[in-house]
Amino acid sequence: MYKVNVGKKILSANEEYALKNSQLLTERKILCLNMISSPGSGKTTILVRTINDIKDKIKIGVIEGDLQTDLDAEKIRATQAPAVQIETKGACHLSAAQVSNALENLPLSELALIFIENVGNLVCPSTFELGETGKIAVLSVAEGDDKPAKYPAIFARSKVLLINKTDFLGAGVQVDFDIERVKADVRKLNKGIEIFAISAKTGEGMTGWYDWLKKEVKNLQAG
Amino acid sequence: MYKVNVGKKILSANEEYALKNSQLLTERKILCLNMISSPGSGKTTILVRTINDIKDKIKIGVIEGDLQTDLDAEKIRATQAPAVQIETKGACHLSAAQVSNALENLPLSELALIFIENVGNLVCPSTFELGETGKIAVLSVAEGDDKPAKYPAIFARSKVLLINKTDFLGAGVQVDFDIERVKADVRKLNKGIEIFAISAKTGEGMTGWYDWLKKEVKNLQAG
Repeated sequence: MYKVNVGKKILSANEEYALKNSQLLTERKILCLNMISSPGSGKTTILVRTINDIKDKIKIGVIEGDLQTDLDAEKIRATQAPAVQIETKGACHLSAAQVSNALENLPLSELALIFIENVGNLVCPSTFELGETGKIAVLSVAEGDDKPAKYPAIFARSKVLLINKTDFLGAGVQVDFDIERVKADVRKLNKGIEIFAISAKTGEGMTGWYDWLKKEVKNLQAG
Repeated sequence: MYKVNVGKKILSANEEYALKNSQLLTERKILCLNMISSPGSGKTTILVRTINDIKDKIKIGVIEGDLQTDLDAEKIRATQAPAVQIETKGACHLSAAQVSNALENLPLSELALIFIENVGNLVCPSTFELGETGKIAVLSVAEGDDKPAKYPAIFARSKVLLINKTDFLGAGVQVDFDIERVKADVRKLNKGIEIFAISAKTGEGMTGWYDWLKKEVKNLQAG
């Protein structure tokens, strides 16, 4: 028996495309953030406000993932940002091949930042690398503060957690959400994660998030 | 060339277990409802209130599915109802084999109704049959009213839709949720579905849901 050492890890088809995407984005010095959350946590609303508020400073493009419809891409295009919709036709996460295809349909030379809005699913997208620079987890306070304990993978793997819909807290509705509990639980899983508590509807707390984006884009361009 | 007709559809391993579960439940005349929703839509809160309110009339058991932790089974056990926790260890849906195992650990001869609380995920659980009598979709108003259009499969396959957290509507928080739009979109996918708008926190609207459960249990026992 001979052992043949091929000298590199054998990559899955998804990993091959993820590597290709990562190389392309690195070469173009584009920051690429993969947003992952449950359905209805507010990813699209966060993107629309973020683009409107910082589009004069950072050129942003968006890849939208949904099982069906292009409702979200339409909302993004209303901001004038370029957006490509991927309809997964029932699949529960985006694949790196789909993202590779979408990247070919974005004006990369004009962009400094690309958001990928993944399919609304707190579980499956966390295990499929797309070649992104980093993952952004979004958790709405309406979902309850037990989610990091119950769905740890995405919180462990993200660069940033956006706690959204903080306008629900103290508004006379019953919400089981202790922000300090969530921060402590998430930091147990992921010491280096940045956490911003925001309301994309009212704009509360968005400045810290924008400052983080500007810093990351600047570091990448300078690197 | 001969064609061999084996006289039956070849079942997947999951379908084999689903069939076994279905036969067991039918024989025992137990109504079994598979609850599917995004994380944080309020499935456990709905179950706790439902059990507390109708446990004198219907004997209820629960199978809890989570990636990790037995937080939800503990909440159910506080009602005195028997509950079995399945930890999927990262898998994004319950399997019929896991449910088969859980059924062996419930006191079936004492039960008329079993709820299966699936993993919080609006996508994957909808395509894995567990042998249940029917599926119950739960949608929180905080998730937005575009969800039936974007995630149609579960709404098309459910016997009941519970629209939860109606106490958020008109409470001074901004929620993009038009109940009539959701009802119309869901009925386009599924003419026969029953829809109840409820707040499991305040108890608003729960009576219609309880009446439906009582009717279904009665029909099954009489059948």
